[in-house]
Amino acid sequence: MSDHASDLPLSEDDHPNLLAKLSETTQAAELIEDIQNLHPADFADQFEQLSNEQRDAFIDANAELISPDILAELEDEVVEDILPRLPSGQIVEALTELDNDDATQIFEEMEAEQREKILEGLEPEDRANLEASLAFDDETIGRLMQREFVAAPPFWTVGDTIDHMRATGENLPDLFFNIWVVDTRFHPIGYIPVSVLMRSPRETQLSGLMNDQIFTIDQSMDQEEAAYIFEKYHLISAPVLDSDGRIKGIMTADDIIDIIQDENKEDMLALAGVSDAGVTDTALTTVRARAPWLLLNLATAIMASIVIAFFDYTIDRFVQLAILMPIVASMGGNAGTQALAVAVRSLAERDLTPQNAWRAIRREVLAGLINGLIFAIVLALIAYIWFGNRDIAIVAFIAMIINHFFAGLAGISIPLLLKRAGLDPAVSSSVFVTTVTDVIGFLAFLGFAALMLV
Amino acid sequence: MSDHASDLPLSEDDHPNLLAKLSETTQAAELIEDIQNLHPADFADQFEQLSNEQRDAFIDANAELISPDILAELEDEVVEDILPRLPSGQIVEALTELDNDDATQIFEEMEAEQREKILEGLEPEDRANLEASLAFDDETIGRLMQREFVAAPPFWTVGDTIDHMRATGENLPDLFFNIWVVDTRFHPIGYIPVSVLMRSPRETQLSGLMNDQIFTIDQSMDQEEAAYIFEKYHLISAPVLDSDGRIKGIMTADDIIDIIQDENKEDMLALAGVSDAGVTDTALTTVRARAPWLLLNLATAIMASIVIAFFDYTIDRFVQLAILMPIVASMGGNAGTQALAVAVRSLAERDLTPQNAWRAIRREVLAGLINGLIFAIVLALIAYIWFGNRDIAIVAFIAMIINHFFAGLAGISIPLLLKRAGLDPAVSSSVFVTTVTDVIGFLAFLGFAALMLV
Repeated sequence: MSDHASDLPLSEDDHPNLLAKLSETTQAAELIEDIQNLHPADFADQFEQLSNEQRDAFIDANAELISPDILAELEDEVVEDILPRLPSGQIVEALTELDNDDATQIFEEMEAEQREKILEGLEPEDRANLEASLAFDDETIGRLMQREFVAAPPFWTVGDTIDHMRATGENLPDLFFNIWVVDTRFHPIGYIPVSVLMRSPRETQLSGLMNDQIFTIDQSMDQEEAAYIFEKYHLISAPVLDSDGRIKGIMTADDIIDIIQDENKEDMLALAGVSDAGVTDTALTTVRARAPWLLLNLATAIMASIVIAFFDYTIDRFVQLAILMPIVASMGGNAGTQALAVAVRSLAERDLTPQNAWRAIRREVLAGLINGLIFAIVLALIAYIWFGNRDIAIVAFIAMIINHFFAGLAGISIPLLLKRAGLDPAVSSSVFVTTVTDVIGFLAFLGFAALMLV
Repeated sequence: MSDHASDLPLSEDDHPNLLAKLSETTQAAELIEDIQNLHPADFADQFEQLSNEQRDAFIDANAELISPDILAELEDEVVEDILPRLPSGQIVEALTELDNDDATQIFEEMEAEQREKILEGLEPEDRANLEASLAFDDETIGRLMQREFVAAPPFWTVGDTIDHMRATGENLPDLFFNIWVVDTRFHPIGYIPVSVLMRSPRETQLSGLMNDQIFTIDQSMDQEEAAYIFEKYHLISAPVLDSDGRIKGIMTADDIIDIIQDENKEDMLALAGVSDAGVTDTALTTVRARAPWLLLNLATAIMASIVIAFFDYTIDRFVQLAILMPIVASMGGNAGTQALAVAVRSLAERDLTPQNAWRAIRREVLAGLINGLIFAIVLALIAYIWFGNRDIAIVAFIAMIINHFFAGLAGISIPLLLKRAGLDPAVSSSVFVTTVTDVIGFLAFLGFAALMLV
């Protein structure tokens, strides 16, 4: 079977959800065969598209169709939802059959009570591997790595290595890309890509063939850090070491792709003030994920309103100020958000470092002043034409420049300060930035108005 | 040499920039040796950290230190800047030595005039490969793929294949992870991971060993589409086909990681209204990348101000309205941005599809109403305590619910509509959403105020 990638469902209309159809059909047998022929990733996609009711009905009728591979493909939140409904035997089978990293991710989603029961059903070795992974913090490499890998001593020849692999067969991982050459203490001292090993003469010693520029990952390392190393050095796999430098497992590029997508999603949602989002969210989980940020925003919006309230006398005399002031605040907020997004992204890509931070700050402040000047001129002209009042035009002009200056400054320096304090620069920085631009925008505009007009 | 990943520069203070030091030292010879020992990716990182003046000075003095591998590691914008300063011979050497995909990316950054000169210096084969890649659109797989790969017919044995690879040696790519099994017309019919091939008995036929569930990429496919396939099916490499289904090259997971990072950066910056950003941006390029969005924002902010101007009589009588109205608009803007970010991300991950779009819209609208109700109560209480005016509190209450409702609706439906129209849902959607929440916010708040208070 050749799955042409161009045949992938781009519009679900052309590709009906087989799982959804199952509850509606009278000829289930044929449909079930089609469902079993789905790639586990496609099954998982279709399953995630079901409504909560459809999903529960599907499991009640056809739990056995959810194979271990499918369980590994489902998103964590979906796994968490369905685990209590699956028979214990099926879960034990899945955890036994799957690679250690996938098994760990599934096990994590269980309630304590179910965990006990499942652990009892596992073979001692699988149980030990699971417990070893769970000893590491969430989002660290110790949790995520594969514990199966292929290592060989430097004095072996290519022939020795290939013969050994043919002999051990079953106990090797299905797929591997590098042979790790290790010393007697299991410290990696080099690696040989399988494609190189295979076409080298049988009598060559591994020590003469290996590449000793080897990039390693610590098992206590945060997943984001590991992803950065893979990205920077274009790695396909890398050995994971314990604190003594001994090789304990490996990470591969396909797992890193998942990590990168998670981290990017986290950053993007954090910038917009959302703590979490998933395909199975209900209105209530959505409210829970967003209300805290809205509350914070309400607090800062009230601060801005207090600034406005200081100048109620001025506004009372010149109602045009109430009309123009949101423009100043909005432009500053936008300019600040632009600078912020660039800074957060540059920090994530490590393009923005202590070494060039001052240059970036100078650039943002200068760009803010230039954009401020451009739009100050435009707004001043509009204000003059609209209200025929030269003083209001001048006030708008000054306030725009001041607010764009602070927008640039806040947009770059707030994420830098959060980073320096060891915090995530994406989280909460946009609230701080818009607070600055709202408060400064209203203060500058109404303050100068009070000075010039009253 | 074992590069411990934990030794990577997290703070540049601990890891001085060797390139920057070169112009300051009197003992250049030793420093140059250290520089030559840098991994090309580290050299590139340090080079990108230099100011424009430092960079130019470095090239004038030490252009020869920029090896082909380093050129491949540098960001496009940096390559574009330095190519005119490099000797033609050095560029020709780099394009000859590098893999086709890297060579294409460097060649793209050249001016037409320089291109002519460099093409003349290339061997006919390298020239033809470059021109073949450049015939494809930017950001399509035809441009990005590697044209070197390993294919074999199904009737070969494992022994035949390994012997053939040992014999051809030099003409094979350094690294490969799968052998592609092809029919007589060079259509891929299966694949065998190198790790499987290597440990199989020599007499086994490839047809008996191959996995026929093979995921392929079209050479005209957009890079984002290809990245999605890699991510979904956890691929390490995939064959690239022409329109006749013939294998023309391959993509590997490490290249896909770069694509994913590019696409994520694009989305994140687009949401914030920035068209481009890079480590070498000056204040002027920054202004150019952001001013168009600020201009669009100015236009929409003026629309909101026109709404306010309709109610100048009401504001004139109740200045408290001018104090509270930015809160309503800001809360709506925030709620809309939250919904928008979730929608854009879900579309990028293809979790949001025509099939579950209605469910997502219902969820967002409902979540908007619930959050609206919560914060309407809070704001109404605050308004009542602050101004002691029951009617103003009621007006704030109603306007908050209405604006949160439309915030949820706009936040989810604007990206969906952009997507359906074939446009990028990340680009420009945030301006639309905040226009809706500003206009509705002011209109609802001031409109009800005019009805109830005047």
